[in-house]
Amino acid sequence: MKLINMKTPDGNRLGILTERGVIDVAAQASDPAVPRTVMQALRLGLDEALPLLRAVERDATAFLPEAELEYAPAVDDPEKIFCIGVNYRAHIEETRGSFTPAEAPTVFAKFRNSLAPHRGTVLRNRRETRHDYEAEIAVVIGRRCAYVSPEEAEAYIFGYTLANDISARTLQKVTSQWVPGKTCDTFCPLGPCIVTADVLSYRNLHLTGYKNGEKRQEGWSDDMIHDIPELVSYLSGCCTLEPGDVILTGTPAGVILGRPADRQDWLQPGDVLDVCEDTIGILTVTVQDA
Amino acid sequence: MKLINMKTPDGNRLGILTERGVIDVAAQASDPAVPRTVMQALRLGLDEALPLLRAVERDATAFLPEAELEYAPAVDDPEKIFCIGVNYRAHIEETRGSFTPAEAPTVFAKFRNSLAPHRGTVLRNRRETRHDYEAEIAVVIGRRCAYVSPEEAEAYIFGYTLANDISARTLQKVTSQWVPGKTCDTFCPLGPCIVTADVLSYRNLHLTGYKNGEKRQEGWSDDMIHDIPELVSYLSGCCTLEPGDVILTGTPAGVILGRPADRQDWLQPGDVLDVCEDTIGILTVTVQDA
Repeated sequence: MKLINMKTPDGNRLGILTERGVIDVAAQASDPAVPRTVMQALRLGLDEALPLLRAVERDATAFLPEAELEYAPAVDDPEKIFCIGVNYRAHIEETRGSFTPAEAPTVFAKFRNSLAPHRGTVLRNRRETRHDYEAEIAVVIGRRCAYVSPEEAEAYIFGYTLANDISARTLQKVTSQWVPGKTCDTFCPLGPCIVTADVLSYRNLHLTGYKNGEKRQEGWSDDMIHDIPELVSYLSGCCTLEPGDVILTGTPAGVILGRPADRQDWLQPGDVLDVCEDTIGILTVTVQDA
Repeated sequence: MKLINMKTPDGNRLGILTERGVIDVAAQASDPAVPRTVMQALRLGLDEALPLLRAVERDATAFLPEAELEYAPAVDDPEKIFCIGVNYRAHIEETRGSFTPAEAPTVFAKFRNSLAPHRGTVLRNRRETRHDYEAEIAVVIGRRCAYVSPEEAEAYIFGYTLANDISARTLQKVTSQWVPGKTCDTFCPLGPCIVTADVLSYRNLHLTGYKNGEKRQEGWSDDMIHDIPELVSYLSGCCTLEPGDVILTGTPAGVILGRPADRQDWLQPGDVLDVCEDTIGILTVTVQDA
């Protein structure tokens, strides 16, 4: 099942994306147990939410045209947004030897202010001249967990979405810690939909990233150094993971920072960025000035 | 004014700490405009909240004994918890030359799961053997701001509290990024109270840190490399700061990591940690195993 977060005048609402259009769950559901928002669905967990949402899908009588919707970020109130650095072998090569594959994943953070929706806007930070994209698969947690093994980890995943880990390279690199260049407002576009983990495996996800229609990045989740169950396991050993927590799993080769200095075409107002995965779809944003 | 966050069976409630005891604001206030929770007070902002709370204090007829209260974290729902690394000159010296005073503050992050209250418990992470303390002054934001100058920054500060930036040194240092060793559950004790910025200046705050009654850390906010207005200004240039955002401003010399290897007495169950400042008071926690 594909779940989307619809922005409406009455607040953000849960939608089910189908071949016939989008089901507005709150408008179609009669059972009060059915989750009406993405966060409610995540807090309910996949095992409980899925049968309720399948019943809504089966009985739905109205379908909204997807093209006319306004999106909210696929998850709009995560307690935590973890990001994984340098997790694809080819991306490590382009960072020019400054990283070696570590025993542990490299983990940094974004806060909720960084979220942006599909078809939304990424705002360039006013104190930064070197804005970059990073196409990523994002994991959405659906059950509280702590200290779980990689073998157990998949049971705590609600689903998968896409993210663009927008990066202000000067703010990121001015000290050893990357957070200031990563949690700028709108630097975490998330969407378009969450594909639930019952229909999509973490294996063999095919990720691509585009700038103004030109393919810049391509990777497969099987090429991750720390695969998705390992990431969930590791983070659950650092802190309790909650429903709605989001993990950006790292980016493949092809970022602007990795290009030769004379071809570093940093993001400009009007640039269009796409992150694509065969099943999850396309996450599109446009760059503007703050 | 000193504001505390009281844990009650009906949820967390705002208290005013006075010489006569604690005023339960929700129980004493008749004016519906008066904030009933710390987060409501922060979102109202200092200029609006203070006259309302002064009226409650003036008319209060009942005072709770402070010693019998259960505390919640001084701020319980921050969107962001920023932490500043290596911001006292003497702490840089003890980190053995691995840092040089940077042009920009070193910034990392904790999430909300890391919060713990005054008189609460710090839980040792099961995958870590080297737990450390870091006594810190914490700034609480009271007005939304972005791109403010250091000169303007003070107007956006609601008040000051204390934090202990508990650190799992192996998880912190296993890669370049510190977040995994910093955002473990309960690793951000925050309290005991917020002293409002109308009565306390960011200048000349006198900070001490104790382990089992032994003074380990001492510093003055005037010894910060990046002072508090500069930190607020810098962070507001990275992202929009919101009411309730918390900034831990760095720790003075004296952490366990800085001691000779044969005297690194990492935290053990039963250890009692105090962070003290002359006006803000004492933030006390006890260490236990998770």
